[in-house]
Amino acid sequence: MIKIKRAVLIALGDELLSGIRKEGNCSWLANKLSRAGWKVECIEIIPDGNNSLTLFLEKWIGKTGLLVLSGGLGPTHDDCTRRAIAQFLGTELVPADEAYDKILSRYPEEMQKALEKSRDTQGVIPARTRPVHNPAGSALGVAFEEGGTSVRAFPGVPSEFRAMAEQELEQEMRPNSGIASSILIAGWAESLLKDRLAPVIERPELHITILPSPGLIEFYIRGAPEDVARAERDVKDLVPGDYLPSAAKSLADAVISGAKQKNISLACAESCTGGMVGGALTSIPGSSEVFFGSAVCYSNTAKKSILSVNEITLDQEGAVSSLCAAEMALGALKIYGSDLAVSVTGIAGPDGGTDEKPVGTVWFGLADKGGVETVKRVFPGDRDIVRERAKNFALDRLWRKITEKDR
Amino acid sequence: MIKIKRAVLIALGDELLSGIRKEGNCSWLANKLSRAGWKVECIEIIPDGNNSLTLFLEKWIGKTGLLVLSGGLGPTHDDCTRRAIAQFLGTELVPADEAYDKILSRYPEEMQKALEKSRDTQGVIPARTRPVHNPAGSALGVAFEEGGTSVRAFPGVPSEFRAMAEQELEQEMRPNSGIASSILIAGWAESLLKDRLAPVIERPELHITILPSPGLIEFYIRGAPEDVARAERDVKDLVPGDYLPSAAKSLADAVISGAKQKNISLACAESCTGGMVGGALTSIPGSSEVFFGSAVCYSNTAKKSILSVNEITLDQEGAVSSLCAAEMALGALKIYGSDLAVSVTGIAGPDGGTDEKPVGTVWFGLADKGGVETVKRVFPGDRDIVRERAKNFALDRLWRKITEKDR
Repeated sequence: MIKIKRAVLIALGDELLSGIRKEGNCSWLANKLSRAGWKVECIEIIPDGNNSLTLFLEKWIGKTGLLVLSGGLGPTHDDCTRRAIAQFLGTELVPADEAYDKILSRYPEEMQKALEKSRDTQGVIPARTRPVHNPAGSALGVAFEEGGTSVRAFPGVPSEFRAMAEQELEQEMRPNSGIASSILIAGWAESLLKDRLAPVIERPELHITILPSPGLIEFYIRGAPEDVARAERDVKDLVPGDYLPSAAKSLADAVISGAKQKNISLACAESCTGGMVGGALTSIPGSSEVFFGSAVCYSNTAKKSILSVNEITLDQEGAVSSLCAAEMALGALKIYGSDLAVSVTGIAGPDGGTDEKPVGTVWFGLADKGGVETVKRVFPGDRDIVRERAKNFALDRLWRKITEKDR
Repeated sequence: MIKIKRAVLIALGDELLSGIRKEGNCSWLANKLSRAGWKVECIEIIPDGNNSLTLFLEKWIGKTGLLVLSGGLGPTHDDCTRRAIAQFLGTELVPADEAYDKILSRYPEEMQKALEKSRDTQGVIPARTRPVHNPAGSALGVAFEEGGTSVRAFPGVPSEFRAMAEQELEQEMRPNSGIASSILIAGWAESLLKDRLAPVIERPELHITILPSPGLIEFYIRGAPEDVARAERDVKDLVPGDYLPSAAKSLADAVISGAKQKNISLACAESCTGGMVGGALTSIPGSSEVFFGSAVCYSNTAKKSILSVNEITLDQEGAVSSLCAAEMALGALKIYGSDLAVSVTGIAGPDGGTDEKPVGTVWFGLADKGGVETVKRVFPGDRDIVRERAKNFALDRLWRKITEKDR
């Protein structure tokens, strides 16, 4: 039996309710807490302004174990969190000079003068509460315990919220590794994967979540440690060769770490993805050890002059063809001098499709000193989705080639 | 005086509460509704499961104008929305065969058989409610009016939710163009921009939201149509040359539309951004008219062999230097044969920084037939943020060059 600790997260902000900014702080914290064995009962996004927050404090304090508030602690008139807490506790706002001085001491003199003006807003806290140091900004946080509920209020600026939560909730967020496992599975459609993994999905002792993204599915398992461990082994047995190494957070990550391990250097030739494959590979720190570069050749002229694609290929087969993909991959292999090169050329839309080559048609090439192979996919979806899928499929090709047993 | 219509949005899903997926449907709808003059009172993210949803229906029905539910309508046991509505209304679930047949008719025969099995879950609705057609998936939506509240429930799959909301709430989401305006401003730090725009920000009749992202700030104004129009004019007068054309949704969009207008062809040479500049430019449909390509040269060997950067430059100045950025931009101009080329070379971190060239140091080059200019920036932040800022600064350079009055 897992002991469940319960939490409620509340984000304040008119900008979140008008949809011009997506809520991210509570979502981030929910993830950390869930992996540490907490159950987040509810995330509420409410307007700036005193009244509604007091109602929410009354609703949840005493009913949940941890209540975390994001936002409403800055110096402007909208920033009402500390007043709402004081009203709820029936106390006054009092200066937290020592804590505010500690924050000010981090700033240059000129800035200190400006922040001094905000001492009576950012530097006060409700009596009977404790100030929380802000290592990334100038507004103090607030902490108190009431009716069995731990309450923490941090500013809504994401870098400040995270820094303060990491410091103040370090213990609460410590991952409980046994009770949750995430397996990334490449190259499966969601419905087919669900059929394949049904023997695991149907186990009543597990809580399974399946999170598909283009080309990669996250299979998230929660339960008792021994059940999770068994499920993890069984899933891997059901899709051998398709799950990413557990340390890899993405396909790009798996490609780079695999290439480093086997000392294989990489290059790309991109048309419809326009640099997204290179962008993904270079998002991984240390990718420069194995990634040499990507020739983004959007125009046919560039395909010819830079990648040595034949004029006849372009005239007779077109840029979106097996032959062009093959010549692009070979071209990238040659100009970068890498061990392995992948190419992508397709029709992302919305225009440019034909009956024979509809929007979504993408050819991929994979070249090494042993030769070149090509494969075609027709992806559904709009321009953004086709490009995202094409990027991930190119990474998938690289990853499988790199991890081939006979290399 | 603006008449405010009020709405509450509720998303169901354990995966949203465990933070493994970020809520997006309510956020998207909140944006649409806000631009149409609605005030979203609250977004609530609650667990899968009947009990809590019934409580929320009781809490909001009769108290708000529009209540939209996302999720809980599929065929699995977690999908409880229709049962919760039936319980709230005190009615039974009844078949909506005509509506479900309409959905089935879109699928191939084999798939129809599988979906037939789900008729008694996905194809039923509470009595006294109306089925909502799903043009993008197989689960019906539910609509009803109760106590002055319009209630709409759509499946949580983003493509289905959006398609059904666009169809069912078309009138509610129709933008009320006078009452909100969004101005994108490039190249300003948030604090300096706030000072510059203080005369507008301080007007009590306006509701201003400032949304900074790396290199681009969205200045969002709401209020009475005549106040918004005046504010928009005044903001543009205060930052002449720095606001994007109103049709442009991003810097990349502004670059591509500007280049098309002036018939200027573009190319890039990228090191630390790894293809992100090309990726951003090619995200714009029709970019192939003016964008030729990007030479991503991550390794020094590639910089030499592909972009003709001098060995002496790399030896004496290093890859992150004014001279290397200049040679990279000139190299891209030459190999792609474009009118204009931008280059990016820097240290994104976490390693590779020195006292002289700390992490975040990025050199940019801009070359055309008139010559080449370079500029250096040192960006704060981690690897992802440095790369994002570098990408946006490169786009900013291109945009300003393209829109120069004397071109």
